[in-house]
Formats: sequence, C-alpha cells, structure tokens
Amino acid sequence: MTYVKDAWYVAAWSCDMETAKPLAVSILGEPIVLYRSEGGRWVALEDRCVHRLAPLSLGRCEGDRLRCMYHGLLYDTDGRVAEIPGQDLIPAQARVRAYPIVERHSWLWIWMGDPALADEALIPPAVGYDNPDFILGHGQLDYAAEARLINDNLLDFSHLSYVHANSFGAGPQFAASLPKIEPLERGIRYTRWMTNTKGQSSRKSDTPVDSFMTYDFLIPGVLLMWSGNYPLGTAEALGFAPPRIDDAVAGVTFTSQAVTPMTDKTSRYFFNWGPHRRHGDEALRDQLMALADMAFGEDKVMIEAQQKVIDGTVDPRIMPTAHDKGVTIFNRLVERLAAKDMAAPRQERMG
Amino acid sequence: MTYVKDAWYVAAWSCDMETAKPLAVSILGEPIVLYRSEGGRWVALEDRCVHRLAPLSLGRCEGDRLRCMYHGLLYDTDGRVAEIPGQDLIPAQARVRAYPIVERHSWLWIWMGDPALADEALIPPAVGYDNPDFILGHGQLDYAAEARLINDNLLDFSHLSYVHANSFGAGPQFAASLPKIEPLERGIRYTRWMTNTKGQSSRKSDTPVDSFMTYDFLIPGVLLMWSGNYPLGTAEALGFAPPRIDDAVAGVTFTSQAVTPMTDKTSRYFFNWGPHRRHGDEALRDQLMALADMAFGEDKVMIEAQQKVIDGTVDPRIMPTAHDKGVTIFNRLVERLAAKDMAAPRQERMG
Amino acid sequence: MTYVKDAWYVAAWSCDMETAKPLAVSILGEPIVLYRSEGGRWVALEDRCVHRLAPLSLGRCEGDRLRCMYHGLLYDTDGRVAEIPGQDLIPAQARVRAYPIVERHSWLWIWMGDPALADEALIPPAVGYDNPDFILGHGQLDYAAEARLINDNLLDFSHLSYVHANSFGAGPQFAASLPKIEPLERGIRYTRWMTNTKGQSSRKSDTPVDSFMTYDFLIPGVLLMWSGNYPLGTAEALGFAPPRIDDAVAGVTFTSQAVTPMTDKTSRYFFNWGPHRRHGDEALRDQLMALADMAFGEDKVMIEAQQKVIDGTVDPRIMPTAHDKGVTIFNRLVERLAAKDMAAPRQERMG
Repeated sequence: MTYVKDAWYVAAWSCDMETAKPLAVSILGEPIVLYRSEGGRWVALEDRCVHRLAPLSLGRCEGDRLRCMYHGLLYDTDGRVAEIPGQDLIPAQARVRAYPIVERHSWLWIWMGDPALADEALIPPAVGYDNPDFILGHGQLDYAAEARLINDNLLDFSHLSYVHANSFGAGPQFAASLPKIEPLERGIRYTRWMTNTKGQSSRKSDTPVDSFMTYDFLIPGVLLMWSGNYPLGTAEALGFAPPRIDDAVAGVTFTSQAVTPMTDKTSRYFFNWGPHRRHGDEALRDQLMALADMAFGEDKVMIEAQQKVIDGTVDPRIMPTAHDKGVTIFNRLVERLAAKDMAAPRQERMG
Repeated sequence: MTYVKDAWYVAAWSCDMETAKPLAVSILGEPIVLYRSEGGRWVALEDRCVHRLAPLSLGRCEGDRLRCMYHGLLYDTDGRVAEIPGQDLIPAQARVRAYPIVERHSWLWIWMGDPALADEALIPPAVGYDNPDFILGHGQLDYAAEARLINDNLLDFSHLSYVHANSFGAGPQFAASLPKIEPLERGIRYTRWMTNTKGQSSRKSDTPVDSFMTYDFLIPGVLLMWSGNYPLGTAEALGFAPPRIDDAVAGVTFTSQAVTPMTDKTSRYFFNWGPHRRHGDEALRDQLMALADMAFGEDKVMIEAQQKVIDGTVDPRIMPTAHDKGVTIFNRLVERLAAKDMAAPRQERMG
Repeated sequence: MTYVKDAWYVAAWSCDMETAKPLAVSILGEPIVLYRSEGGRWVALEDRCVHRLAPLSLGRCEGDRLRCMYHGLLYDTDGRVAEIPGQDLIPAQARVRAYPIVERHSWLWIWMGDPALADEALIPPAVGYDNPDFILGHGQLDYAAEARLINDNLLDFSHLSYVHANSFGAGPQFAASLPKIEPLERGIRYTRWMTNTKGQSSRKSDTPVDSFMTYDFLIPGVLLMWSGNYPLGTAEALGFAPPRIDDAVAGVTFTSQAVTPMTDKTSRYFFNWGPHRRHGDEALRDQLMALADMAFGEDKVMIEAQQKVIDGTVDPRIMPTAHDKGVTIFNRLVERLAAKDMAAPRQERMG
C-alpha cells in the first residue's frame, strides 16, 4: 500500500476514550497502543513489549506510565522502559517507539512519520465538538478493504446517484454533470452549484433554491464538507463562484470524515455530521446520522465487494472516467508525497 | 487445477432464478454475473466493471441491460459499455467478457472456453423438468473442496458401501465386486447388474429380482444415471448386456448431477433425482430426496476432510485400487482435453 | 518450529477416550488417529489413507483394526493394509506410519521420533489418577499459538504477578525476586522458598509459614510441580535447600501439565491439579480447578495476543530479562536435542 507517512492520521474519537484504559489500534500496519493517562496526558506507543513482544494494550496504566501485564515491564510516556521486575539494570535498547499524538477537533491524531517533522499545522481543519456552530453526531465503521478504495469513493461523488440511490437520493442527473475540481497543496477541492432545485437529503426545500456543496479532501484521507441553500439566482449572480457560508438561508451542515489505513486490506472510517445551529437542531442531527448510517453501510457493501474482485484479479486495471479527475489528482499527490517520505534524510528511528 | 475450458458448466438451476435479479457465480475461478432480463433473455457477463472493478452482480437490470451500481456504467448483453454517466465518449476497451449461456434440462449452462467453439451439441443430455417421464426433486450443495475430488467420488461407486453405509445401504458385497467401466468420447460409462437381489434404496423389492444400474460421467463433471429392476433371470438372458429402460418392471429412477469448480478449492454440486412416472409418485420423490440429502451430506463430510488432509500433505500421492478404473480414464481424458484447450489457435478473447 | 522429535508427546487424556472411537489429533504437524481397540489395545496411526488420503479418523474400528470409511481399506495395528475391497493383491507400499503409544499417568504418550529409539524410561514422571496420594481434577485447552510460547510462559513464573494478578494473586513481590533455576538432563528445575508468608492460592495459611514450591519442566514440554507449607524457620534450618514433601504441614498439591504442538501455530495444553489426600479433599480440588480455569484463560488471552504481535512483526526479536534463565536453558536444550534428531542415523521410516 502506498500511503504518506509524514501525515497525521485519525486514531480515535477522543470523547470515546476512557481515562487509563489503553486502546489497541493499527495504523499503516503498525500496532499502536494509545491511552489518556490518569494525569490527562495522551500517549501513543508501539504496541509491542521489548521483552517478549506481548501487546502493551493488554497492560495497566499507572500514573502517566503503562505497565506490560505479561512480566511487568513499566514504560514511560517516551517509550523508555522504566522498570524491569527482578532486574536492576535497564538496557539502553529497552525502548519502544513513541508517536506524536494530538487531540484536536474531537479526534486523536497520530503522526506516523519522522517525529522531528511532526507539524501540528498539518492537521486538517476538521469541525468537531469544539466548534460551537454545529450540532454534531459521530460514528465509525471498519472496512475489510484498503483505505485507498474508500478515498477513491469519497473523491468521486457521482456514486451518490447509484450506490446511494435509496438513501441520499441524488438522482441520475447528479452523475450526469461534472463538479468543479481544483488541486490544493495537500489535496483537492470539490465545488458544485445545483441551481433551481428543491434539493435532497439535508438540503431539501419546499421552494426552488440554488444549492451549493463543497469539500476539501486532504492528506492522508480527510474529507471536510459543507453545503447549504441560497436564494434562487445566487449562483448566477456569483458567476458560479463559491458563496459565503454565512449567506446561506437554509440547510447548512458540516461533515468531517477520515479514512485510516489499519493494515493492507483493512481500514477504519470516522465521521461526524450535523446542522449549523441556525439551520437545525438535535432532531435534525439524529435524522442526518440515521441517513449517514444507512448510506455508509451502502458504501461498505460496494467497496468490500470491489476489494474482493480486485483480490481475485490477476492484473487489476482500472479505466478512469470523466468523474475521476479528483481521484487522479489526489492519488498522484499521495504517490509524490510518499516518494518524498522515502527520499528524505531521517533522524534515526527510536523504535 | 486442471479442468477443461471448452465445455459447458452448470451455473444454476434456471427455475431458481428470479427475473431481473443478477446472480454472482464463480466458475473455474472466473467471477460471472448471470441474469434473466426483463425480456426473458439469459445473459452471462464477466462480473467486474471496467471502471473500478466493482462487481456487476450488485448492479441493476434495465431492460436487457445491466447497470453497475457503483458509478452507473451501463452494459449491453454482449459486454459492451453502452453508457458512462458524465461522459459522452465510450472507449473501445470499455467491454467485459460475455459468456455463451444456454438454458437446457432445467440448468443454465455456461461455456467457459473460446466462444467460437461453443457447440450446444456438447451439452450433456441431462434429465430436467422438461422431461415428462420423471417426477423430480432438485437441490445443490457447496463444497470446501476442489471439484476433482467430487468427480473422483462419483467415478468410484465402491464408496457406497462405506461412506453411505447408513443411507444408501449398499452393503460390503457392493464394493467387493467390480462394475463394468467403458470409455466414452467425453467420459466413461458405468454398468452393473446385481442378480437375485432384494435391492436397496430406490430399488428395494419384496421378491428377488435382477437389478441394473448405469451412469455416464461426462465432461466437465456431469453424472447421468438410471437404474431399475427386472425379472429374475433377465441379466443372464441378456448375457449381462444392458437392458432397455422400458423393460424394467419396477424401481426406475433418474438422477442428473453436476459438479462445477468455483475456485481452486471450492465447488458447487447440483443434483436432481426422482422416479419414472410409471414407478413412483411425488411421495417417493420426496423420500428419495431426503435420502439424497443425507447421503450427499455424508460425501461432503468425507471429501472436505480429505481435502484438508491433502492440503496438509507436502507431497500428496494416491495409490489407485481396482475400483479406480473409471477415475483414471476420466482424469486422463480431462488432462488430454485441457492440453488441447491450451494448444488450439484461438480467436482473440473479448474480455 | 524447532521441537524435539525423539520424545514422548501427550496426545490425550486416556480417561476421556471411548473404546473403538477414533480420535484425530495433530502433533508436530503430523495427522494422527488414535484409538483404544475393542480388545483394549492402544493404537496410533498416520491419519491418512494410502488410497486417496482420506482421514482414517473418520473410520470404523473392527476388532483391533481400523477401516477407512471412504472406500473400505482395512488397516492393521502396525499400519499395514490388510484388506482392499474388490482387489486381492495388497501392494507392499500399502502401509501408513504406526506410532509407539503408551498409556501412563492418565495420559496417552506418542513417540514422534524414530520408533527404534522409543524408550519408555523417557516418559516424564507425571502424577495421574494412578497415583493414590492426590485428589485430581483435569482439563485441556487449545491455543492459537505455537507451543514454544506456552513453554516460555511456564518457564518464567514471574508472570504470576501480572497475568494472574486477579487469580493466583502472587503479588508484585513475587516477580521482584528470583527463584533458583538448575539445569536437568532433560529440562530445568525451579525451586523457591517464600519465608514468613501467609501464602496464596492453594497455600493460604492463617498464621505465617515458610512456603515451598518446585517444578521440573521437561522435554518436550511437561511441567511437574508440587508445593507445600512448612513451619516458620524451616527454610533457614535447611539452608534454603529443598524440603521433603512428606514433612509439609499443609497445602501440598501437585499439578502435571503438558504442552503439545499441534501445528506451527496451534497447541493443546493438558493439565491436572489437586491436593494431597492429607491436605485436602474433593471440594478443595474443585476450588483449585476453578482457579486453574480462570488463570489458564488469562494465559491464553496473553499468549494468543503475543502470537498475533509476533506474526505482524517483520523481524521479531526478544530482550531476555533476569527471569529468563529457565527459558534460555530449556530452549537451548531443545535446539541441541532437535539438532541431534536430525543428525542421528535412522532406520528407514515406515510411513
């Protein structure tokens, strides 16, 4: 799998983590244990004891530290072994890798590359529970499929007309025309006006409106989308340029979504969604989340089936269509950044 | 796995197919979607969209055509893409393989080799619901075992004495003597007289009779068997030659069975069975089917266990016995025909 | 996997075997069928028919012999085929491997190496139901882990302080000090005095005592342990030498445990435990077995998780600690004996 190492990956919903209860996750095939210490500190360590490779995620939090519960080695937050029962000397190599970890926008982000390059400015500007403007619900879903296939899905919204014919209900006309796709430094931007429409899903309207949707899809696999309705004629008046979110008259929602590669062929998909406070309430949030659960289940069926076909194909080749512009730009960016990961001089790994 | 490609394989019971509801099957490791169109036409296509390899079997029938429900590509019955949403031009390579498919004797037969060689005369003369003489039941069973092992089982009926000691109840004397085995152009013929017997399973008799059974086992793995009882002395009077089916006085039944390799290590086994109208009724058919369900379950236990032993054996070798004559002839025929498949000049594949 | 072939492996609890009911087991990756014949004889054969590799464990006992229930080949206790239905001649190669098998101490022991070297004196002196001094319970547990990891676990009891913090309750002080470890010809001996203690699990005491525990861990993976309490001061009076078991005043129990490698990554763990008749009764035995079930479940969780981490690690390396003395001595012994297995001249294998 080709993924960017020098990037922040979503590891968990911070609000779902209990204090002093270690969680085992796998990111890019690396086993990681993460926990919030009794002192409130976030820690992410290689989930593999130096002694006999037992998982530290079966361990016990003691203050800020984590004890392997096989033979009792105690780990500091930097990954160094602080105590070996029955032995006074701690060898220098008694150390596991410690990962930079940051809580932001309700997510725990782990930096998978060179720790010296971990720049918090690279964390995508998701909307989480720290944002007072939106009323959000959240969830997550595991896939038996490689993350790239989920990214591809999120980079080509024409699938709404087919995969989601029974949920989001975009209609065939949605796939019949193309959105605007622009490259960003670390992703792509999708924008789309639908004029003179009564909308769909979160943007249904009794009277015709101009409806706008946009998302950024950012390295390593983070979708940040908002949409809203505008008075008829707005799109044309703006020359089909993007509107200001504050000018929307109805239907404004925001969704943050993140795709994290667990292993070669498994992924975890995190998502939230909800209305702007001025355009909805908890009841609408719950309706949207029920719709999302249905729709994301539809994606999962299709993508896991697609993975099986790919696995059974000797030389799997795709045939891109006009809708693949975003997919193509993004995947080339991933390849370029992943190659840069490999080429860059590194400080020695600690793990 | 060595199997003959230029052959008709049973893909499904036609009576079990709903109109406009695609069915995913795997034959010789190839993913195939088959459906009966709204217009009543049978279609079999490669189950893999040219765009991003999603399975077409998750698609939607539209008239005679099939739409991929990932991004909406529409396929014609010949495998050509007829429509790509959001794109006017259809590239020439936008085409999946279409397989010759024929409904006959209640089975859907798919030709897995060169379409130019698909000759309907090669479809084995099974007995299905189109035959007015027999009252049939039908079923199917999936195996976690390679098809060859099931073929081998069906080519050596001495297993009736052991595997089916509690169901068909042939008794040890059945395995103690040999049937007559003759080569056919595309298989072997098994014939056997049991004289002065009170029979077993479908041929039980209150008074001693001469009982006859025969089957052809044909490429790629189709068993067509009938049996019946004759007055004492018939066998000797005929010099142990085969009798005419119409001269049987009781116990005439027919069973058609087909073994289809799904993948290297999985197979689907199709079967029907039932009495001739003159020798039984629906009640007898149901008794026979209950017996078949029990017996085929016994085969499955043995063959799947055999497969596991083979998988765990570094250099698996067999030691044929006198009963293996049919197995040996048939497997050599398979190898000869499979080699011919490889050697023959071909029209270019469409897939 | 590196294991000693010239050794007796525990295959089953003899008391759990029904007469004339074959049991399939796997030892060192070899499929073996074992049974007690109608005549009361123990037989262990290669579980793979010479004909078509069906498992003989699906067969039928006939007197002392075993019939393959696929096509009826009949096997003698020495592995030779005695009968082939439908065929008079029995080829010389119609023979499977027969394994030396001995019932002793309630276990069935199978010799996996050269039959000519099978020396019953090498069977470890376990305590079973044939020993009148102990009141025993028994059980077994399958692991999705290689046997070596279970051996390692049993060779380093410091894990009692952590894995079994909630069951055996040894406390952290147990892991903080080292036992005495001595090499034996075919294993290691562990001894440990705990002085001035109120004991734990089977050795709880109302008043302080000196508590002693010792076990031998023997090739191929057999643990034989006893422990008991002594009057305060006994350890010092003996200069911390081992006491006589008969001098114990309370808490004497014995446990025999055996680890059998089934395949590369699966194992079967057999165990019994119980008090000496002078120090307990059936009720105490049941309490101990309930405790063992809980504790061995804790081991299983840890070791199977450890196996998964190892499987996911490209170059798995361990970092031994002071507690690993027994592990290191034993694993070197295994390597030495396994190398000797390979080097020794052999009579030709029969299988």
